[in-house]
Amino acid sequence: MAIGFQFILTLFSLFSVPSLTFAFAPILPRFPSSAVSAELKQRSHSSQNGLYRTKFFTQILDHFNFNPQSNHTFQQRYLINDTFWGGAKNNAPIFVYTGNEGNIEWFTQNTGFMFENAPSFQALLVFIEHRFYGKSIPFGGNKTVAYANTSTLGYLSSTQALADYAALIIDLKKNLSATDSPVVVFGGSYGGMLAAWFRMKYPHVAIGALASSAPILHFMGMVSPDIFISIITQDFRSESENCYKVIKGSWDLIDDTANKPGGMELLRKTFRICKSDDFGPDSLEGWLRAAWIYTAMTDYPTPSNFLNPLPAYPVKKMCEAIDSSVTGNNRLAKLYAAANVYYNYTGKATCFDLDDNSDPHDLGGWQWQNRRNI
Amino acid sequence: MAIGFQFILTLFSLFSVPSLTFAFAPILPRFPSSAVSAELKQRSHSSQNGLYRTKFFTQILDHFNFNPQSNHTFQQRYLINDTFWGGAKNNAPIFVYTGNEGNIEWFTQNTGFMFENAPSFQALLVFIEHRFYGKSIPFGGNKTVAYANTSTLGYLSSTQALADYAALIIDLKKNLSATDSPVVVFGGSYGGMLAAWFRMKYPHVAIGALASSAPILHFMGMVSPDIFISIITQDFRSESENCYKVIKGSWDLIDDTANKPGGMELLRKTFRICKSDDFGPDSLEGWLRAAWIYTAMTDYPTPSNFLNPLPAYPVKKMCEAIDSSVTGNNRLAKLYAAANVYYNYTGKATCFDLDDNSDPHDLGGWQWQNRRNI
Repeated sequence: MAIGFQFILTLFSLFSVPSLTFAFAPILPRFPSSAVSAELKQRSHSSQNGLYRTKFFTQILDHFNFNPQSNHTFQQRYLINDTFWGGAKNNAPIFVYTGNEGNIEWFTQNTGFMFENAPSFQALLVFIEHRFYGKSIPFGGNKTVAYANTSTLGYLSSTQALADYAALIIDLKKNLSATDSPVVVFGGSYGGMLAAWFRMKYPHVAIGALASSAPILHFMGMVSPDIFISIITQDFRSESENCYKVIKGSWDLIDDTANKPGGMELLRKTFRICKSDDFGPDSLEGWLRAAWIYTAMTDYPTPSNFLNPLPAYPVKKMCEAIDSSVTGNNRLAKLYAAANVYYNYTGKATCFDLDDNSDPHDLGGWQWQNRRNI
Repeated sequence: MAIGFQFILTLFSLFSVPSLTFAFAPILPRFPSSAVSAELKQRSHSSQNGLYRTKFFTQILDHFNFNPQSNHTFQQRYLINDTFWGGAKNNAPIFVYTGNEGNIEWFTQNTGFMFENAPSFQALLVFIEHRFYGKSIPFGGNKTVAYANTSTLGYLSSTQALADYAALIIDLKKNLSATDSPVVVFGGSYGGMLAAWFRMKYPHVAIGALASSAPILHFMGMVSPDIFISIITQDFRSESENCYKVIKGSWDLIDDTANKPGGMELLRKTFRICKSDDFGPDSLEGWLRAAWIYTAMTDYPTPSNFLNPLPAYPVKKMCEAIDSSVTGNNRLAKLYAAANVYYNYTGKATCFDLDDNSDPHDLGGWQWQNRRNI
């Protein structure tokens, strides 16, 4: 968006955790409330799957140029729920979720806030998927082509995404004869930045925006590069000084252990690393970092299942595991117990693959965006 | 800008007046005050030419995508006058002219309003040239390449131009250590639309905009397609009913005359059309239309020289020529006398070339813009 800034938020990828990534601040979506309740699922009975109907909009590839390729189109997915809507005749409002870096169904299923508030506002709910994520892939819907090189992936930018939302909303309102229905946009994390920017850039389309956990000033030169990781550290330190110290000392501990005879076997056994995984101390440390960071990012006061299934107050739970007398002075066992809160709250895992490259929420494009000022 | 609208304003080109163009409404820049006074020219003595210094800014080709070509740059011209500026330490304001479809020097020399107001505001004056016009030509400054095809000319769009202005202003303020100096943008006609849009789209860069004669709602579906020409008609009719009737009847009169034996020679003689000009009734009618339209567009209350040298209240002068008893009932002579107000106010012309294709103000790119929603 802003010229001259360089976005320093880097996705601390779930599926790839190089140790260098640690120098950057990670970001993942976060929402004020967790998964949609069973009660709400029942109430929105008219929807295809109980929550929404899936639709597609023919979207223009490039909103800002008139080059030959600019007028190409692609199918953009959006989800809609009119269960609570007061209708166009009543100028009932439209709540729009400005989709961020992932499958829109995943975000929709984790944005209970909008479903909970829709009834009292008689709001229409619309969740729009961000271009290049989920099923909203330009270049014929072929992700291999769309992600092939900068000639195609170059159209993945936040300004294009905002223009997509404007085009879709204006067209949808026209089709619903609801041009007078006010629009309020919602989003979390990068999606919250999009919601805030949308209100600023398209004031004639949205009368308001709710931006949750949106680091709109988190750009190079505006905050300290280590502010994100400092906040994570503080999250754990506020639970207990011992918890903070054990985690802080863990990197040297793991390196030292790995260098000792039989150390790698000890680490494999302690952290239940799968036998097929050819791991090193770096990948183990990355795996632990991901646990601390993602848990702090989804440190909700209720049980949740956004990134992984978690108990309420999971950071507190992690520190309780570290501080527990059960593991005595065995710091590796303490670290494992804490990591288990994030990686194995269901208790079903038998071993862990540190190099898991799966991407269940289609987050891949974020790597491209956050290195180019999104 | 706006999605789904089709811009219906078409430049009634000075250098090419096909009769079909008449179906569209023409537009050319118009400013609240005319040429910069001799007094002001003297006062701004520090400037290179008495009015401004010429500078160039390395501008990015595409602000919205990350395609390989997006990061190409070009030299964007801007003119600056710090004669009146109160300086960065006083947070003195910056007045920025958001250049429109032509050579920026031409606009600057015809925007006395900014020069007249700069002293009382202690304002820095900056006039930025619009990409693809004047000397601000992408693709190495080579106009032939830049205008060659849609792959290059596709980067000529109003949204790119607005982003250019934001980038240049932010960089200039930084270089002048004047980040706290408020910016107000100014523009007329399409440049006024740009000024208004700039305030809306970049509220963090400009605290205000003065948009003069800016038809920001003049898009397909929002006004009648003939509203522009209706206003022109009304301009003449408000001077005298006879003036209106003579012009209205002129098209049939010219066609009828052209069809009579010796009629073409009569027209050539009456309108002093150069012997080398192989004209027809259509080109004569186009030439007259241009005179009525451009004169109405520059119907200033003072003598001016924006498009052509003109007296004060030139529409009134045209109607006086038509209503004059000197020409009796000779309607062709009356039309010629009126056209002379626009084409020959200096009295130096000996004959007229109806097919004059010169483009002294570099307006060529407008033909491209106004057929693509600008």
